Amino acid sequence: MRSKGHRGARPRCTRTIASLLLSVNSFHNVRLDLNSLFAGLVSCHVSLPHFKQSGFRNVSVGGFFLSQASSSSRHGRVCASTVLAAQQRSNSTSSKISVDFDQSTGVAVMHMKSPPVNSLSLDFLTEFCISLEKLEMDKSCRGLIITSSLPKVFSAGLDILEMYGKSPESCGEFWKAVQEMWLKLYSSNMVTVAAINGSSPAGGCLMSLTCDYRIMVDNPRYSIGLNETQLGIVAPFWFKDTMANTVGHRVTEMALALGMLYSPAEALNIGLVDQIVPEDKLMSTAEQTMAKWLAIPAHARQLTKSMMRKPTVDRLTSKREADVQNFVSFITKDAIQNSLRVYLEMLKRKKA
Amino acid sequence: MRSKGHRGARPRCTRTIASLLLSVNSFHNVRLDLNSLFAGLVSCHVSLPHFKQSGFRNVSVGGFFLSQASSSSRHGRVCASTVLAAQQRSNSTSSKISVDFDQSTGVAVMHMKSPPVNSLSLDFLTEFCISLEKLEMDKSCRGLIITSSLPKVFSAGLDILEMYGKSPESCGEFWKAVQEMWLKLYSSNMVTVAAINGSSPAGGCLMSLTCDYRIMVDNPRYSIGLNETQLGIVAPFWFKDTMANTVGHRVTEMALALGMLYSPAEALNIGLVDQIVPEDKLMSTAEQTMAKWLAIPAHARQLTKSMMRKPTVDRLTSKREADVQNFVSFITKDAIQNSLRVYLEMLKRKKA
Amino acid sequence: MRSKGHRGARPRCTRTIASLLLSVNSFHNVRLDLNSLFAGLVSCHVSLPHFKQSGFRNVSVGGFFLSQASSSSRHGRVCASTVLAAQQRSNSTSSKISVDFDQSTGVAVMHMKSPPVNSLSLDFLTEFCISLEKLEMDKSCRGLIITSSLPKVFSAGLDILEMYGKSPESCGEFWKAVQEMWLKLYSSNMVTVAAINGSSPAGGCLMSLTCDYRIMVDNPRYSIGLNETQLGIVAPFWFKDTMANTVGHRVTEMALALGMLYSPAEALNIGLVDQIVPEDKLMSTAEQTMAKWLAIPAHARQLTKSMMRKPTVDRLTSKREADVQNFVSFITKDAIQNSLRVYLEMLKRKKA
Repeated sequence: MRSKGHRGARPRCTRTIASLLLSVNSFHNVRLDLNSLFAGLVSCHVSLPHFKQSGFRNVSVGGFFLSQASSSSRHGRVCASTVLAAQQRSNSTSSKISVDFDQSTGVAVMHMKSPPVNSLSLDFLTEFCISLEKLEMDKSCRGLIITSSLPKVFSAGLDILEMYGKSPESCGEFWKAVQEMWLKLYSSNMVTVAAINGSSPAGGCLMSLTCDYRIMVDNPRYSIGLNETQLGIVAPFWFKDTMANTVGHRVTEMALALGMLYSPAEALNIGLVDQIVPEDKLMSTAEQTMAKWLAIPAHARQLTKSMMRKPTVDRLTSKREADVQNFVSFITKDAIQNSLRVYLEMLKRKKA
Repeated sequence: MRSKGHRGARPRCTRTIASLLLSVNSFHNVRLDLNSLFAGLVSCHVSLPHFKQSGFRNVSVGGFFLSQASSSSRHGRVCASTVLAAQQRSNSTSSKISVDFDQSTGVAVMHMKSPPVNSLSLDFLTEFCISLEKLEMDKSCRGLIITSSLPKVFSAGLDILEMYGKSPESCGEFWKAVQEMWLKLYSSNMVTVAAINGSSPAGGCLMSLTCDYRIMVDNPRYSIGLNETQLGIVAPFWFKDTMANTVGHRVTEMALALGMLYSPAEALNIGLVDQIVPEDKLMSTAEQTMAKWLAIPAHARQLTKSMMRKPTVDRLTSKREADVQNFVSFITKDAIQNSLRVYLEMLKRKKA
Repeated sequence: MRSKGHRGARPRCTRTIASLLLSVNSFHNVRLDLNSLFAGLVSCHVSLPHFKQSGFRNVSVGGFFLSQASSSSRHGRVCASTVLAAQQRSNSTSSKISVDFDQSTGVAVMHMKSPPVNSLSLDFLTEFCISLEKLEMDKSCRGLIITSSLPKVFSAGLDILEMYGKSPESCGEFWKAVQEMWLKLYSSNMVTVAAINGSSPAGGCLMSLTCDYRIMVDNPRYSIGLNETQLGIVAPFWFKDTMANTVGHRVTEMALALGMLYSPAEALNIGLVDQIVPEDKLMSTAEQTMAKWLAIPAHARQLTKSMMRKPTVDRLTSKREADVQNFVSFITKDAIQNSLRVYLEMLKRKKA
């Protein structure tokens, strides 16, 4: 599905994108709108002409990542809500996630390995949910550590190309998959630990926030936050709820209004992550944390987690269809699509 | 409407009142009730005999400010809910607020200048809401900085004389104006920054809390807080909600129960203000903050703000009439009115 | 009702139990389940053979305390919801609480003195609620300080023997008494200060959390927290609400999931207690705090307290019967009762 050339390009690309994500931090004093932001990002993407060869064009907009698959690569797509049906052929498309399960500890490590930046495309989300579902149903699996196999990025968040030039039906299908990932992760019966070994903006931050515990590599070049607003997009209420449950109402209000991206030290300070560690201590710390959580009687821990999170989960569950409609009507607005079109045309001109 | 003598008296009066407001901080270990508190305030007001000449008598009760206009000055009053009708003659009554609007930045600065302490009378609130509405409807105005033109006080809060000896109708009209100010400010589409250059108790604190960002002058003689309880009065639920959204449930519980007034450093520590700066850096810091907020795509920022605040706004909107009835029935209680009467008679005796 | 031998055993027993409670802190990295935890506790209880003589067997499970009264000592029990009826004979059973009321200050000090660890049995709760009701109805009593007369323990929490081998009716009656204590304390019109002079796990922590202010002795051997999960039991939603109102959602989520017990310094750091002091300064600090709170006009303070807490109180009130049913069906589960039975048999074998 992906050419060697594509994979080989990974390090260079993610480095460029990582510095881009971080540079958004310094945008605060500058007036920006969607167009100028898009324009500012072009330099990144024109350095990636080999993407065309691979049948994918991947471009990141701040925390978002745009990947446009060639039509030939799209036929395998499944709706995340039909996860079980899709499960039979998960092996054939399981290139975006790899799972190591240690029977002796009952702990699985899920490696996200969808270059260049683990963007949350429909394919990615579908495969993620299938893997998660499998582990959830395996009684011997009691803990899950989520981390990235890519250098410098945990996940760059939602794939914007899933939202551009698509039918309302496709946009809706994509959004249901995002909801599904959140619902599954936030109410998982497993102990979930995010081992954040790179930048984690937008949807990547959301994914981290759903876990029971967050450990981030203490590298000031990495950042984390729900920065949607910087891109002219609005984090939906359940992103907001998840963050407010973690860092409180006021910090969330400021963070979302300004689309803040935090360094690991800042994230620790506001409680967005629970611990920061040197890169080489990340996995051992995650395992120690997991052991501590697994020492608690499982049934009581699960009931407690449900008690804490059920009201938030129920809010989305009860408004799920309306939330899809909201998203679709927002993202298919002429103004939003126009901005995306202008950007993509600009991108094409630069590439030419 | 105001004599020269009145304005000239401003500095001396506010100095006395400022130290009074701050002295409430040291009341914690002392048993106090409304009467003794009122009695303790007389020394301030007897030094202001010239108020009589101006047709106004202004007296502050802790964070509250009592101003009783002569009947001749009352005919211009409008209900805040009929703001548009009143707008035509806003020039004739526009002495309490002045607005500087910079077309180049899109930022308006609203100076509160109602001596001696910017108490929130019905007149003040009406004019404030009219000014706010004008700016809100002006698409070129994107940001609002609220500050005081008076020395040492931002705003001393609600005007108690609007609550004494008034008909239930008048009390209700006043309370609707307070609600209106809060509703308009808390859900403003503009970026709002409070540049707090003096003490800001009770309603003054509420006004600050409605803004997107609060910067306070780092002068330990200034204080800020919802201190209603100290006066035997209860902050209504939407004051409480606004504070809890900012500093959390527990800090709010303690602060309201004890009627806490915080120094700027303490306020920063609990998150009641976002930043403290030297007096001469206040406006430049407010402008830099504003530029940072205005750099965010406006539509996304506004939707995000609405998402964060709408549940709180809706709570009042849905109970607005009941909240007015609550207030009117509380404030017109014989016990409360009696305390006010005793106090005012005492004041007259001292003046005689 | 209790023999001399029983009382004389108090110091030795509580010392053992106190260190036991604290040792749970170091359990985090160890896999534990109900049985191993129970087994680990046996060493404590076999050293207390004299309990048999007194007609009581008292055993503590972490934060819980199991006391099984001989049938002869049970006939005096009253349901907490029939407190008024029981009040007439409160003198005859008032051995578990003593109250010192100072008319000059209006402050009552309630000493919990039910050896060995002030476990919250039905008898204890009934007497506690009767004492509280009396003070609440006495207009001259405006403040209440709750403390322990026992060394090293404030209260070890709910009495597990009220939950083992009992009919659903008895379990339900017990749970109503726990609810009653919480409802009465959390919505008390008095100023309530917890003077925490020893470990305060589980229900002991809950009792502290209901107060207006918490002062804890700064002894690192004491601990406080809702550690139910460690025992395979789940803190009910109103325990959770009370904690979240105090320390926020995220800290509560972690604390409950892991069954965290905090040292006084840690508890201060997360806001679980408001102040820590040397042992010999506890009561004087409590009295100074009380004087500060009593200086606030009582009516305004009470209305403010009600405004802050009523939504939380109403949640239980509206679901009270369902909450009893939940508890009864959980605690009478074969799995839970089996664990308790295995433990108690093990205890008997060790004693033999």
